[in-house]
This record gives sequence, C-alpha cells and structure tokens, in this order.
Amino acid sequence: MVNDSSIDRVVGELRRLADSGAVGEKLPSTRTLQQRLGVGPVTVQRALGRLVAEGRLVTRPGAGTFVSARRTVQASDTDWQQVALGPSPVQTSGLDVLFQLMGSPGFQLGAGYLDPGLRADTRLAAAASRAARRPDAWASSPTAGIPELRSWFGRQIGAEPENVLITPGSQGALSATFRAILPAGHPVLFATPTYPGALAVARSAGHIPIPVPGDRDGIRPELLRDAFARTSARLLVIQPTYANPDGSVLAAQRRGEVLDICRRAGAFIVEDDFARWLGFAAVTPPPPLWQDDDHGQVITILSLTKVLAPSLRVGAVIARGPVMSRIAAMRIVDDSFVARPVQHTAIELVSGPAWSAQVRAVGGALRERAAALGAALARELPECSFAPPRGGVNLFLRLPRGIDDLAVATSAGRLGVAVAPGRFFTIGEQEAGHLRLSYAGIRTEDIPTAVSLLAEALHAVAERAPGFAN
Amino acid sequence: MVNDSSIDRVVGELRRLADSGAVGEKLPSTRTLQQRLGVGPVTVQRALGRLVAEGRLVTRPGAGTFVSARRTVQASDTDWQQVALGPSPVQTSGLDVLFQLMGSPGFQLGAGYLDPGLRADTRLAAAASRAARRPDAWASSPTAGIPELRSWFGRQIGAEPENVLITPGSQGALSATFRAILPAGHPVLFATPTYPGALAVARSAGHIPIPVPGDRDGIRPELLRDAFARTSARLLVIQPTYANPDGSVLAAQRRGEVLDICRRAGAFIVEDDFARWLGFAAVTPPPPLWQDDDHGQVITILSLTKVLAPSLRVGAVIARGPVMSRIAAMRIVDDSFVARPVQHTAIELVSGPAWSAQVRAVGGALRERAAALGAALARELPECSFAPPRGGVNLFLRLPRGIDDLAVATSAGRLGVAVAPGRFFTIGEQEAGHLRLSYAGIRTEDIPTAVSLLAEALHAVAERAPGFAN
Repeated sequence: MVNDSSIDRVVGELRRLADSGAVGEKLPSTRTLQQRLGVGPVTVQRALGRLVAEGRLVTRPGAGTFVSARRTVQASDTDWQQVALGPSPVQTSGLDVLFQLMGSPGFQLGAGYLDPGLRADTRLAAAASRAARRPDAWASSPTAGIPELRSWFGRQIGAEPENVLITPGSQGALSATFRAILPAGHPVLFATPTYPGALAVARSAGHIPIPVPGDRDGIRPELLRDAFARTSARLLVIQPTYANPDGSVLAAQRRGEVLDICRRAGAFIVEDDFARWLGFAAVTPPPPLWQDDDHGQVITILSLTKVLAPSLRVGAVIARGPVMSRIAAMRIVDDSFVARPVQHTAIELVSGPAWSAQVRAVGGALRERAAALGAALARELPECSFAPPRGGVNLFLRLPRGIDDLAVATSAGRLGVAVAPGRFFTIGEQEAGHLRLSYAGIRTEDIPTAVSLLAEALHAVAERAPGFAN
Repeated sequence: MVNDSSIDRVVGELRRLADSGAVGEKLPSTRTLQQRLGVGPVTVQRALGRLVAEGRLVTRPGAGTFVSARRTVQASDTDWQQVALGPSPVQTSGLDVLFQLMGSPGFQLGAGYLDPGLRADTRLAAAASRAARRPDAWASSPTAGIPELRSWFGRQIGAEPENVLITPGSQGALSATFRAILPAGHPVLFATPTYPGALAVARSAGHIPIPVPGDRDGIRPELLRDAFARTSARLLVIQPTYANPDGSVLAAQRRGEVLDICRRAGAFIVEDDFARWLGFAAVTPPPPLWQDDDHGQVITILSLTKVLAPSLRVGAVIARGPVMSRIAAMRIVDDSFVARPVQHTAIELVSGPAWSAQVRAVGGALRERAAALGAALARELPECSFAPPRGGVNLFLRLPRGIDDLAVATSAGRLGVAVAPGRFFTIGEQEAGHLRLSYAGIRTEDIPTAVSLLAEALHAVAERAPGFAN
C-alpha cells in the first residue's frame, strides 16, 4: 500500500543517505532500496522523484541515481543584486512597522484591528463554511466581483451595482486606484495627517505626496485651494469620516467647498471611507462625500476588514464614469479577481442578522474604549493634547515640544505597550511629535494600565530630552 | 421584535413614500409611521437611518425627516474625466479578453483553468471549512505568509522558508515583483511567445517589453545575448517549463547558458513556473531553473491556482538576497497580506493525501486531452501547425499565412468555441497568426466537436481572406 507517510519516511532515509554520501556517489539500486526499507517499488520511485525535484539527487537514465552537487550558497553571493537593484521604487512609509506592531506582545494601542473578543470569528466561520460548499465556490469570479456583493456595497451609499468594484480590502483598492489614475512623477494631495498605507502606495508608484493640513473639522479649504494653485495635482486623498489618525470629521459646511475646489481643478477625490461602520453606538456617521457629488469626482473606498476581522479581506471601490473602467482594468492586472469563497463569506455575513449585531457590538465597545482612553490620558498625561474621537478607532496624541515620537514609541514598546509613532502619518516637517493611539485592539479594562505605562515611557524620554523640563 | 426582514419591509415602504413625494417634503412623524406600518420605534428608526445613509432622506434635528434632492446624474456629467485622466497607464494586453473568454458558453478552448470536473472542489470545501474554524483563522497573517505554507513551497523546489513569500496567485506575484525591481521606463526582456498577464503587469508599470523569441527548446540564447547587448535590460521573464502559450520546455543544454548570459548582464530572471504541477501523468517535469542558480539571479513564481481551482488564489515568490526584501515590501504596500483562512486551506490541502491524488488526476486528464486535441487538429486542420505539448495546458496553433487570428477567434466564438487570439501572447509584429488553445477546461469527449467547429470557423475566415486559397 502506497501512502504519504511511507513515502515521507523513505524520503527521510534517502535524504540521510544523500547527506552522508559524496557528490556523485551512486545510490543503491531501486530493488536494494526496496528490500532495505521494506517498501514497494512505487514508494521508492516517488521518494526518489521528490529528492530529484528538490535537486538533492540526479538521475541519469540507464546509469542510476546519484548524489548531486551540494549548493552551499555564500552570503556574499547576492551582493551584485545591490548594484543591479539601484534605488528602490518601493517605499513602505512605515506600513511595515505598523504590521510589526500588531504582532507585539503586551497592550495593543498600536494596531487598528479589532481584538479577538470583538472580531466576528464565529459568524465568519459559519459563513465561510457554507460559502466554500456552494456549487460554484471555487470557479473564477467576474473580475469586478459577484453581483450580490456589488449591489450590497452600492446600497450602503446609494450607488448602482455597476459603479462598484470588489477588492481585497482597502489597501488593494488604494493601490489600483492611485496607479490607474496617475503615472509616476505626478503630485497627489493628501489631507494630513493621513494613513501611511495610502502614502506607501503613492510613493511606491512614484507619485509625490503633498500635504494639505486639516484641523478637527477636516481638511482646510483655503490650504487646499493654495495647494491646487501651486501644483498640477489631479488627485486629492481624504478621509472625511473619523480620519486615521486624528479622528477628524469633515465639517458639513466644508463638504461643498472641498468638492467645488476639486471640481475647478479638474481633480478626482479618493474618499477613503474606512470607518463607515465604526461609528460609536447611537451615533450615525455623516454620509459619504459620494452623496454630495454630482460630477463623478468622488471615488469612494469601503472595507469590511476593520469592522469584521483582519483576515476578511474584502473592500470596494465605488466610482462613476471612465475612471471606473480604468480602475477595473488595473485590478485585473494587479491580481485578476477576489476569490469567490471570500466574497460569498462576506455577502452571507453582511446580508444576515449577524451584520447589524456586529456593527452594534463594535460601536458600543469603541465608544466605551474611546472614553476610557480619553479619561486615562487626561489623568496621566496632561502635558499631551488630543481631540476626543467622535467615532472610528484612532486618537492622535500631540507630544510636548522637543519630545521625539519614535523615542517614546520605542520606550513604550519596551514597557509592553505598542503605539505608532506619529511621523508615519505626516508628510514633511512637523511642529510637534505625535503618537497614534488605536483603541480597536485593547479591552477597556486594560486601558488605564496601558496608559500608565505609556506615561512612564514618555517621562523616561522627557528626562533624557535636552532642554525639556517636565 | 426587531428583525432584518421587518426593517427591509419598512425601508421599502419609506422608499416608495420618498419616491412619490416632492423634494423637501416632510415625512410623517415616527409615531405615525409606527402606527401606519404596524412596527415598533426601533424598526422605524433603523429604516429611516438606512435611507438617510443612502441619501434618499435627510434629517434636520428637531424638525423631522425630509425627502432629499434626487440626483439625476447625466451621462455627460463625467466627460471632464477624459480630460483629467489623460493617456492611460493601464494596459491589460488582452488579459481582460481572456477573462471574458472564460465566461463564454459552449466549448472552452480559451481558458487556462480546469473544468469543474477536474477541480478539487470537494476537498477544498472540507479544507476551507476547517481552516475557517481555527482559533486564529481571522486574525492578521504575517505579511510574508504563514510559516507552514512558506516551508511547503520552499520544500517543493529546495528553497528555505525565509526565501518564500506567499501571494494571492501568480498574477499578484508578478505584479509585486516587476514593480519592486524596476521603476517605470525600463526595458524588460520576455521569452516570446509569452503570458499576457505578465505583459500587462510590465506595461501597466511603465516598463517596455522587448521580445526574445524562442523555439520548441525555449528561449534562443544567441538572441538573448543580442537583446542584452542592445538594451540596458536588468530583467528577463521566462517560463522554462511548459510555457504558456506554446508549451515549450527550456532544453537542458540551454539552462546554464541562459543563466550565464543573464549573470554577465547583471540581470534578474523571473521564472514563472506556473506549470510545476501540470506535468502529464508519469512524466516528471524538469526541475525549476532555481535549482541551477548559485548567484541569487532567479526569482521563481509558483501558483496553486492552476492545479486546484481558480478561486484558490495562493501562490509564492521565491528569491534570495536583497531582492527578496524589496519584493516583500512591495507586497505589503500592494495588499498587506493573504487572508489566513485562504492560506490554511491551501496548506491543509497540499500537505494531505488529497494533494498527490489531485496532481495525479490532473496529470492523467491533461495527457489524455492533449493527445485528443493533437489528433483532432491533425485531422481537421492539416494546414495549421503546432508542437505537440509535453506537459501543461496549452498549445500554440500556427495559422496559415494571411489568416487573421482575431477574425478566426471571433468566428469560432460565434460557433460556440472559445479560443484566444495569438496576438495577445506576442510582442510586436509576427510572421504568422496563431491561436492559443487550452485543454484545461474541456472534457476529452468534447474535443473532436470543438475542433470541427474551430475548423469550420477558420475555413469561413479563409474564404473571405484576400489572396488566400484554401
């Protein structure tokens, strides 16, 4: 009987034989190996085949099987690559550091993802299990996504299904969108502070990010007007609702003005509406900017990842007109389509009763956590300032002047609190350092301890800071 | 009791009310709506909230709810976009057409994906169901992939786990790799004919594809040498094993020569090893070029999608040295990571007995189909020539001179046979037209009929072709 475990065993035996043999040494015949290892000819052949595929053995037809030249690769072997590679087109802009933060032990004020207790794991498992068993589950998907899911995303903001393109979360959506609209070398305006993932996409595509600072009411229209006057930008990137990192909300009276300024500049607006379902309990988030747009200026990006779970990677780009065709084409080039089982898992979850239960549970927990975080910061770190969040998962803590954000984040990490240095969320020089604190991944009861440790870390840095008296 | 169906019903009623009302008309009070619709206050509030989110209604605090201005978007509204967008950086190079072919009814000689009968659907469903229920299933994944899956891919070709990066299929792998290595404006050498998905990635990244023609034994070394001499290319893209579209295999004696030419040019080789598990029954495919490489020149791309199912989107990039760090960084920027349940589904399937059973079943069917296709073509289309495939899923049929590939493909499509025009697989001008015929998605018993119809289509085109006597 040929089974995988017997093949595995024989592979192990043959590998030992090869390791102990000299290069070019001939292996015993298949018949000898059968007898010695107590297995049939098929098992021996399969095992030999696997080691030949690995390059550990070579077969010379009619002559037998031999130990192949061992490849001991020197570390210096790849030095030529540095010359060949030249300057890197890739700029992670801190996104890689944020992902590393997520994996750090201790208290999690660094990650923007929900903690396991808030994730929709059980419901997702049930939905995924059914999705994987559908008759068409493993066939290819229409490249724009399955119709049910396109309709659902469209309904959320009042768009038609044909204006919706399904993507693997919002990162893939940002990547395809920026690169579809602009070739390398063009400027892109960013409402700042902003999300490092969007900066990483723009920089890695060869775009030049230009900051347009905002306040608690979102981007400042007069600065936006100046930015268009000084650049030939054709794209503005903005998070009007509960922006990452500072939680700002574009004020009602600024919405029309922003649309108008962009329309006069002939520019698109990428609306990264990542927090659509991260409103606090009993608060309805403002509608997306999409709904105020009569000219096809706004390209809205939605994602289910934040409110459900990091590994439910489903999002959408919503746009009208020729720009939609172009983004759809880029998505095909980027990775063809989102796997059907993933899309069916998403549609099953969002169209059932579990969806509103999840949104409510998350909204309740976020409200509670934001309040606890605000109270703890006011108590422990009165020298720092912040705008209390009205929704979403982030707060942008302004550090006292002269205190380095990276130093505090590193010091906090050593004490077991993950926080993100503010520099990743900004473009160019800043008056003061910041930390982004996210309360998506930390339980309310852990917040006071985490903030105490953060205060300890900050005070330790302050003591060492030249010219800074606490 | 508030449930989703009653909310849906009330949403429907309110939508009708809004549709029949004038813009700015006030809706009845919540209490009146409750009585009229026979539901509780929560249901009415939720339904109103949904229509407010859609933009169908507006709420003015203290005043009530009103029908909002209807947005009737004119088709001409988005004409400005064409000016703003300018020339497109996106070039699908026929990849979009190939995806459309997959969805066409009738006989499938166009798609490179397995037909439902050969797909591993049942096994995948079981694996996915278990993967979705793992305790960590919905958490984020390490950005490079889960360790078990990296090890598995590495073992297949004799690479260490740290040299393996998990990607969403090979398209995402090609995209991240090309863009990580070269900024826009650089030439890339392609062994031709080649895969349109790779061309689409290069062109959409602003690279300039240069053809290096091959024959039945793969790329021609003397032309490769000339191409490096005439360009500053630092990248060669090649499919050494069962190339798509022509099924060619890089001959043993050319492997060292190709590596050597590229090494002298300081160039990387992207080895798109898409057909690693598409060898015919009882035939061991040649080892990947990776195994002959002592200098970290070769970047090998593997994919499980072809041998398992289109919607199992899992692949890997395997590389050594600094180039690996750079590709990994680009993957983070592109879409962060591959969802955990997808990776766990893959590892469960490939590490169990189902894997070798699937590879055997596919290898048996492909051998049979390739033989049937070859026989039918020899019988029905003696005026066309082709190299009989030795593995993989494709055959490149050379048309008689003067016969247009697109015309034949269109004509065949009308008769119910999907085939891919050869022009998508080439770069620049060609001496003769070709069709790519794939036998992955057609049952053996359907092949004779499909080829008869194809012959009919070709003869119809030939009769209309000027100067062509059949």
